[in-house]
Amino acid sequence: GMDGAPPPASPAGLSAYVAVSQLLGLTLLAATGVWLGHYRGGVAWQSQLQFNVHPLCMVLGMVFLQGDALLVYRVFRNEAKRSTKMLHAVLHGLALVIALVGGCWGLGAMDGAGSDPRSNGLLSAGIVAVFESHRAKGIPDMYSLHSWCGMAAFVLYLVQWLLGCGFFLVPGASFSLRSRYKPQHIFFGITLFALSIATCLLGITEMLLFNIGDSYRHFVPEGVLANTLGLLLVAFGLVVGYVLTRDDWKRPPLAEELALSMDFKTLTEGESPGGSQ
Amino acid sequence: GMDGAPPPASPAGLSAYVAVSQLLGLTLLAATGVWLGHYRGGVAWQSQLQFNVHPLCMVLGMVFLQGDALLVYRVFRNEAKRSTKMLHAVLHGLALVIALVGGCWGLGAMDGAGSDPRSNGLLSAGIVAVFESHRAKGIPDMYSLHSWCGMAAFVLYLVQWLLGCGFFLVPGASFSLRSRYKPQHIFFGITLFALSIATCLLGITEMLLFNIGDSYRHFVPEGVLANTLGLLLVAFGLVVGYVLTRDDWKRPPLAEELALSMDFKTLTEGESPGGSQ
Repeated sequence: GMDGAPPPASPAGLSAYVAVSQLLGLTLLAATGVWLGHYRGGVAWQSQLQFNVHPLCMVLGMVFLQGDALLVYRVFRNEAKRSTKMLHAVLHGLALVIALVGGCWGLGAMDGAGSDPRSNGLLSAGIVAVFESHRAKGIPDMYSLHSWCGMAAFVLYLVQWLLGCGFFLVPGASFSLRSRYKPQHIFFGITLFALSIATCLLGITEMLLFNIGDSYRHFVPEGVLANTLGLLLVAFGLVVGYVLTRDDWKRPPLAEELALSMDFKTLTEGESPGGSQ
Repeated sequence: GMDGAPPPASPAGLSAYVAVSQLLGLTLLAATGVWLGHYRGGVAWQSQLQFNVHPLCMVLGMVFLQGDALLVYRVFRNEAKRSTKMLHAVLHGLALVIALVGGCWGLGAMDGAGSDPRSNGLLSAGIVAVFESHRAKGIPDMYSLHSWCGMAAFVLYLVQWLLGCGFFLVPGASFSLRSRYKPQHIFFGITLFALSIATCLLGITEMLLFNIGDSYRHFVPEGVLANTLGLLLVAFGLVVGYVLTRDDWKRPPLAEELALSMDFKTLTEGESPGGSQ
């Protein structure tokens, strides 16, 4: 409860870095749009352009929204913790839904489902339906390193989201359990964000080698644009990672949170006799 | 100065995680060796097998040695700081030299230098020589996202190493300058390690699409092995990253380091009025 007291200002550097991250995020969405729109014929939910829904959804969901969901505790540092948590969970949930649609579109487009009008639409884009249809047609799936990394990132991201809701949103979990899980949640959150970006880089490389092949090595504009998109993805990850891990930009804990975490530390300190006091 | 006193034991979990990281590191070196030796004809400094020197050097230098160099402050927690620093710098330096050789071999093999006996050998493997030879022959270079990320990772890794030596090994830098640079050094160190691993994944994807092409999607053993190598690289990065970022596994600072960092914090606290006390 900080009712009445004027909220402390954000550190000046933090706002600048967050602004840069958002500029980078919008730039990488625009670069993806230009790539797909100008060189790959555009994006459509039906027709053979439906594959292009996949990269667009992944950059929007697994990178931009996931990154912004990670930033909410730095940006909304003076809001009630409960509201910030909800926003964190909602943004990650939205990212998951967009990734599920985009991921299924990626798998679905691979098996040529786009040419069969019955197999279009959100419903038939479900992962189970795609695997069923693949098995029936004998078309292999999930063979590339991109698909392995992408599936691992998505499944672990979903598990992380479910665990996060279970530990931090549902009232059941004790404070000591929450304190014990929190560092794991933070570590795996940042790691999954990095894995998502790496998976995008793999997807860019696959798409370029499949689509433009040998002309890639002659610096055609599409190749240079897609490589630049790759560097923008790395830069977005770098700036978001910097904001998240900088010690003096962390959300200052409330008095009761501090007391609880110290209490918990005293209980578990016995495990690490060499730790700093 | 802990002379005479028995050194405090390492946290139990730490040793287990470090052991797992080393097992993973050796496994990924072995997997790389099996891939190159069994499916790619082996590794040789001359002949057309010389390209294979490139992935081997990169996994050894930019992943295994770089990762182990990051771990030294956790593993040798009771050694004198000066010795641990030296080991950190030497391992990173070794990784850089191996990466330079491997990187040049990668570029050199691309332009077909292996078929010209005069262009073999360490000397002509230098980056300048390769670029010169490319320009003379009109062969493009550095066109792929893999090469862009790899060059960025290598150049920034070299800059990071030079800055690290300048700030922390040469006696000139003041303690307050060191304290100010240290968090940046740590953040960019972990980030460059992640970028190096992502670049390896891109290299695996390129190599598979160039070498086995369409048969990749039929789950041929080489594709499955190389994908597994990719997952092992991610797992190695994950375990090393976990060991590095876990708060209670950090090397406990000496009394004088603590006093200095507090002094420095008092001087700079004015910048972030919202920070925790």
